Amino acid sequence: MKKGFDELIAKVNECGTKKVAVSVAQDEAVLEAVAEAKKRGIADAILVGDEAKIREIAASIEMDLTGYEIIDEPDMIQASLKAVKLAHEGKADMYMKGLIDTKNFLKSVLDKEVGLRTGGPLSHVCVFDIPGIEQLLFLTDVAFMTYPTLEDKVHIINNTLPVARACGVECPKIAPLAAVEVVNPKMPVTVEAEQLTQMNEAGDITGCIIDGPLSLDLAIDPEAAKHKGATGRKIQGDADILLFPDIHAGNLVYKAIVHMVPGVKNGCILTGTKVPVILTSRSDTFETKVNSMALAAVVAEELKKND
Amino acid sequence: MKKGFDELIAKVNECGTKKVAVSVAQDEAVLEAVAEAKKRGIADAILVGDEAKIREIAASIEMDLTGYEIIDEPDMIQASLKAVKLAHEGKADMYMKGLIDTKNFLKSVLDKEVGLRTGGPLSHVCVFDIPGIEQLLFLTDVAFMTYPTLEDKVHIINNTLPVARACGVECPKIAPLAAVEVVNPKMPVTVEAEQLTQMNEAGDITGCIIDGPLSLDLAIDPEAAKHKGATGRKIQGDADILLFPDIHAGNLVYKAIVHMVPGVKNGCILTGTKVPVILTSRSDTFETKVNSMALAAVVAEELKKND
Repeated sequence: MKKGFDELIAKVNECGTKKVAVSVAQDEAVLEAVAEAKKRGIADAILVGDEAKIREIAASIEMDLTGYEIIDEPDMIQASLKAVKLAHEGKADMYMKGLIDTKNFLKSVLDKEVGLRTGGPLSHVCVFDIPGIEQLLFLTDVAFMTYPTLEDKVHIINNTLPVARACGVECPKIAPLAAVEVVNPKMPVTVEAEQLTQMNEAGDITGCIIDGPLSLDLAIDPEAAKHKGATGRKIQGDADILLFPDIHAGNLVYKAIVHMVPGVKNGCILTGTKVPVILTSRSDTFETKVNSMALAAVVAEELKKND
Repeated sequence: MKKGFDELIAKVNECGTKKVAVSVAQDEAVLEAVAEAKKRGIADAILVGDEAKIREIAASIEMDLTGYEIIDEPDMIQASLKAVKLAHEGKADMYMKGLIDTKNFLKSVLDKEVGLRTGGPLSHVCVFDIPGIEQLLFLTDVAFMTYPTLEDKVHIINNTLPVARACGVECPKIAPLAAVEVVNPKMPVTVEAEQLTQMNEAGDITGCIIDGPLSLDLAIDPEAAKHKGATGRKIQGDADILLFPDIHAGNLVYKAIVHMVPGVKNGCILTGTKVPVILTSRSDTFETKVNSMALAAVVAEELKKND
């Protein structure tokens, strides 16, 4: 039974509202999402930024700031460092980007003293609830890591596993994707896909089932898998995690889904960090921003379990 | 006003039914599509292959073979060479794959004596009619050319232009796609996208408008283009031809659309050949096979114009 975003929000409500530190919070779209997340019991926010501007925007969108902690810091870089420190010290369960540009936001995430490094590289995961597809789909990496090496792909997988578990998928099936489902030395990505599969079989990557290379139809469409006679494979249209060859393939598929599939829901976070990081973009809808906060909240709970 | 596949079929009916040479025609799914194409006035077929088997399959699917030319040639390689020669000599307007495997089928297409070479490399184009998107989308290359160089991309564009014109798009807008819409030297595909744009501006690639690199949202979603402030660009959500970085990105997007978007229609052909080549796959639906024949028929008419 697929757990959609409504179920994720119900799960947050069960384990208790989380706390999110917002970096440079004077941003209308971000404050709207933050207010909605509070209303739905997903997260309370600590707003770090220019307090006067935060109050001005809140008034203009009729957002009641009662019960919000506000830390006044008009300097953007300083605000981001103060906000990320709250997450670093465990005073916030997740960290969210506000008006600050992505480059400086990421600098705060990676700050050696107050940031959220865990040792390995960061990666991005986008969770999709797509009408007609049985399982939630976890797409990675569609936004952050550009040309992952084999080693990077192992990190991406390990970054994504707790996200899948947080969404109720205990032992996710992972499809390293390519244009074809057979190994072809002229297509390096298919060779790497096979290597990941072998590492999984050898017990070097655990907590998941890897089967690649796979074409997208065999990964997500059980009918296509049957039709193509893929009955011997570990994945037959029931992949949970879709591992992309590179950022172009990932990002183009991600945007095709968002802009072409009616009724789709999604939420995205950065992983590989001490706490989940919410890095929504201008072009994300209000609903996607709220879904991303719900996703971050259940992942925060999952990461605490393993602490 | 978007011309969908129904309009393409109407256009074939206007300019007269075409003739298709079918290579190794003893294939049930192919014969079903061929019969439907005849019924709709798209094309009459010359069936080259094992006549006994063709008659047996036709009987089993209640296909009336009256009015079909059948050339009996039980040997598959010989059948493919006889079939392609019909197209080579102008006795057929298009060439279609039957039971023969892709490798040997392509050998017949590329045969130096009786094949369909024109000098440049071949490429594949898939035409999509997607609910909610104003224009037809021409995706290339999602199935044939693996890692196109800059020079290959120029060929792909020139192969695709007559296909767009055949579908009523006189001066198509071409989006060389990437994960981002800005040039980044660390992402070679964005550099090549800019070079294609400059070649178009310099008059080295004509009959189209090229604007890249582009992310998919800016290429196909006018709202997203407006929201992201792309008002100065030549393409603002109204791209016709989507040029992919490589086969993985192209094929994954192609399959995402086919397997996730309800109500989508598509047809695909090989181009860069003397006449259009129909290379449908087992997993294509009946409707897609018929659409591919309709597409090939209008492209055949367009190529004749330029002869």
